[in-house]
Amino acid sequence: MTVADRWLLPEGVEELLPAQAQQAENMRRRLLDLYRSWGYELVMPPLIEFTDSLLIGMGSDVELSSFTVTDQLSGRQMAIRPDITAQAARIDAHSIRSDEPTRLCYAGSVLHTKPKSLMASRSPIQLGAELYGEGSVAADIEVISLMLETLSSVGIGDVTLELGHVGIFRSLAADAGLTTDQENELFEVLQRKAVGEINAVIAQYIPDAELAAQMSAFTQLYGDISVLAKAEALLANASDEVIQAIKQLREVAEQIQLRHGDLNLYFDLSELRGYHYHTGLVFGAYANGCGYAVANGGRYDDIGRVFGRARPATGFTTELKSLLNLAVNKVENADIIFAPYSDDHGQWQQIQNLRHEKKIVICGLPKQAAGSNCTHLLVGSGDQWSLQPITK
Amino acid sequence: MTVADRWLLPEGVEELLPAQAQQAENMRRRLLDLYRSWGYELVMPPLIEFTDSLLIGMGSDVELSSFTVTDQLSGRQMAIRPDITAQAARIDAHSIRSDEPTRLCYAGSVLHTKPKSLMASRSPIQLGAELYGEGSVAADIEVISLMLETLSSVGIGDVTLELGHVGIFRSLAADAGLTTDQENELFEVLQRKAVGEINAVIAQYIPDAELAAQMSAFTQLYGDISVLAKAEALLANASDEVIQAIKQLREVAEQIQLRHGDLNLYFDLSELRGYHYHTGLVFGAYANGCGYAVANGGRYDDIGRVFGRARPATGFTTELKSLLNLAVNKVENADIIFAPYSDDHGQWQQIQNLRHEKKIVICGLPKQAAGSNCTHLLVGSGDQWSLQPITK
Repeated sequence: MTVADRWLLPEGVEELLPAQAQQAENMRRRLLDLYRSWGYELVMPPLIEFTDSLLIGMGSDVELSSFTVTDQLSGRQMAIRPDITAQAARIDAHSIRSDEPTRLCYAGSVLHTKPKSLMASRSPIQLGAELYGEGSVAADIEVISLMLETLSSVGIGDVTLELGHVGIFRSLAADAGLTTDQENELFEVLQRKAVGEINAVIAQYIPDAELAAQMSAFTQLYGDISVLAKAEALLANASDEVIQAIKQLREVAEQIQLRHGDLNLYFDLSELRGYHYHTGLVFGAYANGCGYAVANGGRYDDIGRVFGRARPATGFTTELKSLLNLAVNKVENADIIFAPYSDDHGQWQQIQNLRHEKKIVICGLPKQAAGSNCTHLLVGSGDQWSLQPITK
Repeated sequence: MTVADRWLLPEGVEELLPAQAQQAENMRRRLLDLYRSWGYELVMPPLIEFTDSLLIGMGSDVELSSFTVTDQLSGRQMAIRPDITAQAARIDAHSIRSDEPTRLCYAGSVLHTKPKSLMASRSPIQLGAELYGEGSVAADIEVISLMLETLSSVGIGDVTLELGHVGIFRSLAADAGLTTDQENELFEVLQRKAVGEINAVIAQYIPDAELAAQMSAFTQLYGDISVLAKAEALLANASDEVIQAIKQLREVAEQIQLRHGDLNLYFDLSELRGYHYHTGLVFGAYANGCGYAVANGGRYDDIGRVFGRARPATGFTTELKSLLNLAVNKVENADIIFAPYSDDHGQWQQIQNLRHEKKIVICGLPKQAAGSNCTHLLVGSGDQWSLQPITK
């Protein structure tokens, strides 16, 4: 291979150079501090786990999106995590085992074999917060609020919150007598928003004309809050689960609107894209002019069952590098002091004092002059030191 | 597989639960802030790269210690990074391309197929700092100082600094007329400290009795600073590189002892363990009662040549979870305020105010009482709010 090839990075794999990396670090800290201030405790799950632990309950597309390797010590298959949510669920179910509501947050790298969408990274830095052990809508409201705070705290404004509820689809599918395979097939075309296929699948699997019409009309339930009234009318005779789901959506919308007055609300009751393992209320946040959700999440009750402990669960995730691209908050350039080369121990002590005061001091190397990023010179000797601004 | 198997982590792969994870996060921030205050700029290289970019120039054992996967987009082989040093070198050589000295630092997860030593993690969190573009001993002194500051800033005391110089061995091997293969074989037995084999290899490849005796005596050069005088006597007729190397060791020792008066210094001129790609002065820091180096590094000039740009380079790395185990600094338990469940918007605003003051406030969920970790209750209504200590 040529020298030029050696520095090429794989497609969808990015590096962050100094200015950007420091911004990413600042944002990471700001968000983890935010989650901490809401009582969410940090966990650091490992980058790699046995495939059986990592991917169970996450849906088959998650398995395809993971890099797998063989463990030379055990001979078992391991996967690089494509997502941290399942790891946090394992920690709640197995490692913490509290009977109380448990709040966890995390920030870390994940890897995908293929980008999730056209411009998506294959090496995202995932951040998220999860709330376990509470089935009521109060938990959903809390995590949605925290997701919205995430965006506003990094300066992303004009946000649209999209709300949906996977439970409505699942109840309607059950009422229509769909088998699991049929339900999965319809779920899949709905996920892809493959309009032509949706009605073909409905016609094929739901012989009852009234139920088929209801399912078809259901797929058209998107728009502003008036959608909820339409849903109540259309689904008035549906099961109690459906009625409760619509009621939950209304309650969440009212509370969130009260807390975040300038928020745009959008409802899409058949929006299932990306909600592979969700079971109830789902939500995504869209920034102006950005086609994908910058943060999303939802309820995924009982995911911990495979680890021996089923609990209600809801949470959201977002991606640090995407936030960085959208954020308007700039990092102010810090002052950088240049200390010309010297082996004088007094200068060394003065440099160390400045560093302990959180100042940045570059020790000059032999024959090195101050770089263009330096703002001050350290001058003096003995006990007399001062900082001289560098005029450009 | 059974439920009990699902939560098993692979051997040498750890997760950090809340208390530990927060300590790790605090330590990570403290160290990155330290590096920043010394003018080291943060970079975030990716978790995965093409094998050709990642492992080149790093020695064959690095290649064996890496997990490799096939890139589904390009068909080329990629590796999960086993080390961040080579990535930083690529960034210096290709992405930054400065003619001035460049200081970079990083913190991130790496993966090893096998643990590097008996108790070592296979998923270390590597931290490090690298200084490029300066060949003088001033650069070595700077990075050794920063490595020692790393340990003292997290409360690890009673440190022994071990100094060596790979260049002495390489010069002696050249003087003795060893071929590259012979030199590598001797390097390998020296790395393993395989005492019996060392003299057998010397006897086999160095027919000149005087040179063989010199090489054999060289492998015994370890101990306190008096070793340098012994080396000067033993190697008085060796090449200028050897004389210069010993001089460098003395200069570094003097400067470092001046800055860090309570430090124990130890010299081992034939210590080559772990210095696969190093070319000059090498160093390791040992904490009391801990058999492995908690931080180490050295000079690895010209590693950037494979990326089109050879530069002097020196730096060190350490591992966050090892530091955490050794550190004595404890995290103080923070106050946690519990706000009983309410949909009153005034309480919500009060909670948000407290959080903006960096306080931790847990919003109670319906029917939930304050958890055992909560220290205060938020009580009041309207404009009147107060924090009531919870007596245990």
